[in-house]
Amino acid sequence: MPGISQRGVRLPASPIRKLTPFSDAAKARGVKVYHLNIGQPDLPTPPKALDALRKIDRTTLEYSPSNGIKSLRDRLVGYYAKFGVNVSEKEIIVTCGGSEALLLTFMSCLDPGDEIIMTEPGYANYISFSVTAGVTIKTVTSKIEDGFALPSVEDFEKAITDKTKAILICNPNNPTGYLYSKEELYRLRDIVRAHDLFLISDEVYREFRYTDAPYLSALCLPGIEDNVIVVDSVSKRYSECGIRVGMIVSHNEKVMSAVMKFCQARLSPPLLGQIVAEASIEGTEEYSKECFVEYLGRRDFFIEGLNKIPGVYSPTPKGAFYTVLSLPVDNAEDFCKWCLSDFVYKDEGTPEGFTGETVMMAPAAGFYSTPGLGLNQVRMAYVLKKEDLARALIVLEKALEAYNSK
Amino acid sequence: MPGISQRGVRLPASPIRKLTPFSDAAKARGVKVYHLNIGQPDLPTPPKALDALRKIDRTTLEYSPSNGIKSLRDRLVGYYAKFGVNVSEKEIIVTCGGSEALLLTFMSCLDPGDEIIMTEPGYANYISFSVTAGVTIKTVTSKIEDGFALPSVEDFEKAITDKTKAILICNPNNPTGYLYSKEELYRLRDIVRAHDLFLISDEVYREFRYTDAPYLSALCLPGIEDNVIVVDSVSKRYSECGIRVGMIVSHNEKVMSAVMKFCQARLSPPLLGQIVAEASIEGTEEYSKECFVEYLGRRDFFIEGLNKIPGVYSPTPKGAFYTVLSLPVDNAEDFCKWCLSDFVYKDEGTPEGFTGETVMMAPAAGFYSTPGLGLNQVRMAYVLKKEDLARALIVLEKALEAYNSK
Repeated sequence: MPGISQRGVRLPASPIRKLTPFSDAAKARGVKVYHLNIGQPDLPTPPKALDALRKIDRTTLEYSPSNGIKSLRDRLVGYYAKFGVNVSEKEIIVTCGGSEALLLTFMSCLDPGDEIIMTEPGYANYISFSVTAGVTIKTVTSKIEDGFALPSVEDFEKAITDKTKAILICNPNNPTGYLYSKEELYRLRDIVRAHDLFLISDEVYREFRYTDAPYLSALCLPGIEDNVIVVDSVSKRYSECGIRVGMIVSHNEKVMSAVMKFCQARLSPPLLGQIVAEASIEGTEEYSKECFVEYLGRRDFFIEGLNKIPGVYSPTPKGAFYTVLSLPVDNAEDFCKWCLSDFVYKDEGTPEGFTGETVMMAPAAGFYSTPGLGLNQVRMAYVLKKEDLARALIVLEKALEAYNSK
Repeated sequence: MPGISQRGVRLPASPIRKLTPFSDAAKARGVKVYHLNIGQPDLPTPPKALDALRKIDRTTLEYSPSNGIKSLRDRLVGYYAKFGVNVSEKEIIVTCGGSEALLLTFMSCLDPGDEIIMTEPGYANYISFSVTAGVTIKTVTSKIEDGFALPSVEDFEKAITDKTKAILICNPNNPTGYLYSKEELYRLRDIVRAHDLFLISDEVYREFRYTDAPYLSALCLPGIEDNVIVVDSVSKRYSECGIRVGMIVSHNEKVMSAVMKFCQARLSPPLLGQIVAEASIEGTEEYSKECFVEYLGRRDFFIEGLNKIPGVYSPTPKGAFYTVLSLPVDNAEDFCKWCLSDFVYKDEGTPEGFTGETVMMAPAAGFYSTPGLGLNQVRMAYVLKKEDLARALIVLEKALEAYNSK
């Protein structure tokens, strides 16, 4: 039997997926599992977008253009303009989710052996896409005691070699919820300009910001117009992760024409998702406002609740819907597994029909590349309704008590 | 400004896309262009599948499982069983079209520098995916005078080196329409077994066969059960290319678990496409029969018509809806371009509202890797209704006359 590829071997298993069998087993025992581990918003997709599907009047679901339906790209031009980003429809390529946008950006900008710098803790799948593309990721560490702010210029300079071709940021950040300040983005701009690097900016959580400051897209940083590639997606902002519609946005013509060749090879992005995305972008201001209010309320409630649990510390994230927090345990991975395999909590507040409750969290070590970092940290997503978050907080506190008195 | 990647540079532009600006310009002049160049079927998607969309009762379009919705995979098990292929739902992974299925198969089975053998002329995007994966494609040539039959065992043996890890076939074949015989498939089986290679079999045109012989999937070849990976797609068989639903099917557990890691990194295949695909698979026997009759009629009519044109020779394809034919020209690429940029035909049969007619074909040289091969050949797809094919044949004959009397 021929062997699989080395990259297939090296590709890391997701830090979350490893726990799935334990969570499935807990559910099979009738336990209510609060999923704080995933970024699948529980909010409805805009009804207007679902209506677009129900009213579909096509007879053949044919290929769409490789760079996406023009009317969708036109609408995105208007969307970006609201954030001060001036792009034409030719500077937007629609992809199969933010995932494909990332992979094709890597493929178009970097060759095997090239290095890309990102902050850790970072989105675990960045590592997967780098293995897929044969690219080496080097990390600079953001620290919980700094609220996961941008590491210093010196830290970046130390990581840069003659193989470095790009810096990759996620803003607002998954997994930390950190939102970069204007000053931090200009610092990044200076590094990128000094070393003539690409700045790949994953901005899929753009709408989820809990400050009054206007959003500063990497596309608006002066002096590096041709260096910036923005990766985007409609998944989170319209709660339509399943439709697989993302985009690559850049002023760099050479990058865009390389991306386009990769896009032509895979023929087209999903047609139906594009129909939904197009309907989601306009006339949904009220929806977006409601989502924002909901998430702001969840954040305030959840982070405050976390910090009330003895030994728990979470910075207050200014964006996205995640937080990386430290727990009073030595090995958060073991604790996360134990919560699913051994622990169960029950009181009068346990929802009817369940044998008890527990929480599922993502061990944060999987978001670090440096061995030994984040061992007592977990990532949580506050994508559940407030009643569920309230129960999850109670359950987490009880779980920590029980775990630490074993 | 940082430079793009070498793979971005090396990625070939599609042989068809190069002609698109000329075809757009012809259309702008009011010319009716018969698209013989693309494999986008003009038939309707099964109405039942469109109804599934119209009746969608979800409120959140959330991520589907990374390997696809289970009910779709269950249905596919039944579909494959009809072709004598016995697989479980765990041996099927749903992808974003056959394109992603191919790329992830390459990524999971081959490393950069590994070699894969395919026949030429071959599907041009195989080259693109090989560049993306850093894999080297070596070709063995099938010849028009043999009707594009499988090259000899000796030709394969000559191409095999110690870096060879896979043989890739497309059966029925795009671009030639050739359908491999049982004897040919067993010959491939023997080569694969002798050298312990993967056999990657692209079977997306399985339904389009114009013989009475039952279809023999590579998955049914005895003795190489763990070597075979089938790439599939619902695009062509249900005329739903835009939904982007393909699949990887294999008994090889190690390959499937490597593929699954790549799939988890990109989160999920398109949800809406999966809903359409699931509705397309059952209760559409009548639809499939009608499609078959339509394509059989088109093939008979079109191939006969082509061979009546002086100097034109097309083998009679037994599968798919393509043919590679030779034209009485030295440089088919120049001829294809000329048809769009210089030629226009008009008679009483020209459809109303058009200034004239022309044909768009894919120059076949782009389907060969060996320089100098296929220069007088083109690929045509008979995915137009018979009246249009009839006009296209008239226009082609007139174009050849005009071109050769320049």
